[in-house]
Amino acid sequence: MRVPMREITLSGGEPPLRVYDTSGPQGCDPREGLPPLRDAWIEARGGIEEHDATYRSLDPSAEAMIPDALRNRPRRSSGGPVTQMHYARRGEITPEMEFVALREGMDPEFVRSEVARGRAIIPANVNHPESEPMIIGRNFKVKINANIGNSAVSSSIEEEVEKLRWATLWGADTVMDLSTGKHIHETRQWIIRNSPVPIGTVPIYQALEKVDGVPEELTWEIYRDTLIEQCEQGVDYFTVHAGVLLRYVPLTASRVTGIVSRGGSIIAKWCLAHHRESFLYTHFREICEIMAAYDVAFSLGDGLRPGSIADANDEAQFAELRTQGELTRIAWEHDVQVMNEGPGHIPMHLIRENMEKQLEWCDEAPFYTLGPLTTDIAPGYDHITSAIGAAQIGWYGTAMLCYVTPKEHLGLPNRDDVKAGVIAYKIAAHAADLAKGHPRAQEWDDALSKARFEFRWEDQFNLSLDPVTARAYHDETLPAEGAKVAHFCSMCGPKFCSMKITQDIRDFAERGMREKSEEFREAGGEIYVQLGDSAP
Amino acid sequence: MRVPMREITLSGGEPPLRVYDTSGPQGCDPREGLPPLRDAWIEARGGIEEHDATYRSLDPSAEAMIPDALRNRPRRSSGGPVTQMHYARRGEITPEMEFVALREGMDPEFVRSEVARGRAIIPANVNHPESEPMIIGRNFKVKINANIGNSAVSSSIEEEVEKLRWATLWGADTVMDLSTGKHIHETRQWIIRNSPVPIGTVPIYQALEKVDGVPEELTWEIYRDTLIEQCEQGVDYFTVHAGVLLRYVPLTASRVTGIVSRGGSIIAKWCLAHHRESFLYTHFREICEIMAAYDVAFSLGDGLRPGSIADANDEAQFAELRTQGELTRIAWEHDVQVMNEGPGHIPMHLIRENMEKQLEWCDEAPFYTLGPLTTDIAPGYDHITSAIGAAQIGWYGTAMLCYVTPKEHLGLPNRDDVKAGVIAYKIAAHAADLAKGHPRAQEWDDALSKARFEFRWEDQFNLSLDPVTARAYHDETLPAEGAKVAHFCSMCGPKFCSMKITQDIRDFAERGMREKSEEFREAGGEIYVQLGDSAP
Repeated sequence: MRVPMREITLSGGEPPLRVYDTSGPQGCDPREGLPPLRDAWIEARGGIEEHDATYRSLDPSAEAMIPDALRNRPRRSSGGPVTQMHYARRGEITPEMEFVALREGMDPEFVRSEVARGRAIIPANVNHPESEPMIIGRNFKVKINANIGNSAVSSSIEEEVEKLRWATLWGADTVMDLSTGKHIHETRQWIIRNSPVPIGTVPIYQALEKVDGVPEELTWEIYRDTLIEQCEQGVDYFTVHAGVLLRYVPLTASRVTGIVSRGGSIIAKWCLAHHRESFLYTHFREICEIMAAYDVAFSLGDGLRPGSIADANDEAQFAELRTQGELTRIAWEHDVQVMNEGPGHIPMHLIRENMEKQLEWCDEAPFYTLGPLTTDIAPGYDHITSAIGAAQIGWYGTAMLCYVTPKEHLGLPNRDDVKAGVIAYKIAAHAADLAKGHPRAQEWDDALSKARFEFRWEDQFNLSLDPVTARAYHDETLPAEGAKVAHFCSMCGPKFCSMKITQDIRDFAERGMREKSEEFREAGGEIYVQLGDSAP
Repeated sequence: MRVPMREITLSGGEPPLRVYDTSGPQGCDPREGLPPLRDAWIEARGGIEEHDATYRSLDPSAEAMIPDALRNRPRRSSGGPVTQMHYARRGEITPEMEFVALREGMDPEFVRSEVARGRAIIPANVNHPESEPMIIGRNFKVKINANIGNSAVSSSIEEEVEKLRWATLWGADTVMDLSTGKHIHETRQWIIRNSPVPIGTVPIYQALEKVDGVPEELTWEIYRDTLIEQCEQGVDYFTVHAGVLLRYVPLTASRVTGIVSRGGSIIAKWCLAHHRESFLYTHFREICEIMAAYDVAFSLGDGLRPGSIADANDEAQFAELRTQGELTRIAWEHDVQVMNEGPGHIPMHLIRENMEKQLEWCDEAPFYTLGPLTTDIAPGYDHITSAIGAAQIGWYGTAMLCYVTPKEHLGLPNRDDVKAGVIAYKIAAHAADLAKGHPRAQEWDDALSKARFEFRWEDQFNLSLDPVTARAYHDETLPAEGAKVAHFCSMCGPKFCSMKITQDIRDFAERGMREKSEEFREAGGEIYVQLGDSAP
């Protein structure tokens, strides 16, 4: 079994460093898609049948948008669940679990037991064989998700595929396609066939498009057909806002920012208009059966998450979280993998309570939070306001952090925003791994700091989360090749570089040590201890 | 008494919001300097005498760099301390304390008692009357410092003055001039005369320039004269690395990154070369007497702070912190105000220990930390790696956060980097204020969130920490004037805006409520309760 890793070659006699890598096979033509890594594993397990896709666009120009090479003949279970949880509970270690174990440096049996227990998920739709298996759970590396997708006013398929490749290049562990504009189906087909990471969606968005954007017109049948359509395409996890109950909606009435989840507001409106529980809640077991037949995981949405500091940790939010727990247990009855979505906007002192309640009420299912943003006052910088909260909640036990870009609240993120969001969240996730004491996290920091101390500038750049930016910043003031071996940079100049002075101190101390040794021998070998100039 | 505030005018019948402002008087000619706000207060208090400046450059071209309008005739005590702590301990509420109390919305007597107790400082050199008083202490708003200053390979006086104005415009509460290049004295004169915020320096840098960059050549006399020179110019606080003791230096020998503080490495080298304690430590009481005569505050340096995750919270670091505590108490004997500098590079789970030990060992003197950076792997983004740690340690009780720019470890920050660092740290400081429950912090978040929910786009921009960027990001996809009143943005488009749907829900619910009321009346007034469509 071959597992992707990025190997960073170092100079100065240092061994190369291998780091986790999400960028997938490189150099593939997006019109052809990625190689189907998992095909053989899925076929070998059996219990699967192929069939024609149920969805067909009525618009021939839309049909033509998908080249034949990007079409897939859907698979589904021929009876009974085909989920990683199902196999795990039967005691089977799947190739996906082995892959994940190698990738994380963990024991495969531990991976299996975490999946069986529901403490971790491996999102892996049988119709997305191109994905490289990854695991989301608090006993593994903290993961990050990047949202892409068009909206009615902006972006094209090409741009979205490019954002996908760009996001995984910089380190996104999963990508959600949140398209709400034109050609949602076609955009998604391109994305899935080109994605080395699991793809998540919020199916209610596409269902709403099918009823021309009028929430009240949504029906269970339209939603169900949309689910199946997306299961067949290969979506790996669905955000389902089944925890938004009719009686919770009034709890948002006195909020500063009401309901800020798109899905949550759609469902809330439906519930009020029909004055009953949503079809997501009333048909939840049927949804489980559908998802079990393709191994699509739940990401139970937090439709009532707070959208401002004022609304953090309120009754509406926690009422829904309890229901997320109830739904988690039902999904597990069907062997369907589950994670729970969390907030939102939360000031730092209220973050821990979110993690504690989620662990307790949702039986340790993985938590997947948006940020949280720790203040509302910095639109344009919400990748930072939220990285602060994300790092903290990751440390407390959140398994995956949904990124926020600088464009949050202001507009649709472009390529630069996607990168800024991914890097900020890689930082938050890695800071959390360090704080949790993940066994392999600190070797990366140590390798970089050693390179820094030894003025191996090229190594320092190459070990950076973003080597391009690190090199560019250095070269802005000292572009000459010679500066790449200089024992200083433009920040302090040659005379004030503390690292250079420290090396001088060590040389000095070493010389001192040799001299003392000589004195010692000459003096006839008496014990000589002197602090300060002997040890360093 | 007039205290600076930024008043943000709002639409929609909302009252204006007043926020703390550091930008100082606007429209002044930098060749003239700022008006001397505190002159009358200083004169009125008495105990002060004027004299000629002791420092005079031997280089006539350097002399010519300072226009007459930017020269000041130095003041000093005519006997006994003239520090804010001295007055506070005598029970006097100075105009500086009143100013601070108004600025923070606190009781002047509380301000006085915190300064008397040493829990807060008001850096206010009698030779920097241009500064608008501000307070650093954990019972007040968390403050941020921006470092500027040239190095031997980069920058000019003009650039540094521009960085000062730029840093205070975006919210720097103090500015440190860390120049180590040419014309340190002249650069500083320009900066102080144009600074509405306290200026800090590290005098050892200039002292080292005077001995051509050879640490071993430093003497107490050269250092003392440098201190006096800077006291006379108006520096408000000095970083003094007096806690770096000879016996601590060997403790750094096995570190991954040795000594990373410039000042710390200079002193360590001196100590080893002379095999004795530094003149900073042996002459500490004389330093106190000098500083008491001008009211310059100590920022006791942490010369042995960790420069990598691997070195965090080690013996060297904590040994020095204990000595910082010893020195704090000595400074207090001389009525000299003190804060303590702290790290550095610290993973999240080790941050709290820093705060707890500092509070205990340094008797609650204000803590002033650099970051801390929570991982080493992201050069180019250390404003983010460190904002994560800064927000946390600010919440735990750190009084001032020293910013880190994206150029940290790579080069000298330019104007854009200064802004990026300041904004990231305003976010961290405000997030900490919220988490600490500062009484006036959340009104800013609430005003912005309310504007957001009501689609008052212009208000949302104006309430942002950086209105320019917020507006530009919005306009990137929706530049038309009409979009400034639209009930959506390009992120979700018109049909998927949760805030719009929530408003629809509220309208719907209100209509429902009216209808129910009518039904109720028509039906003869029976009690009618129905959850979901009645309350919101």
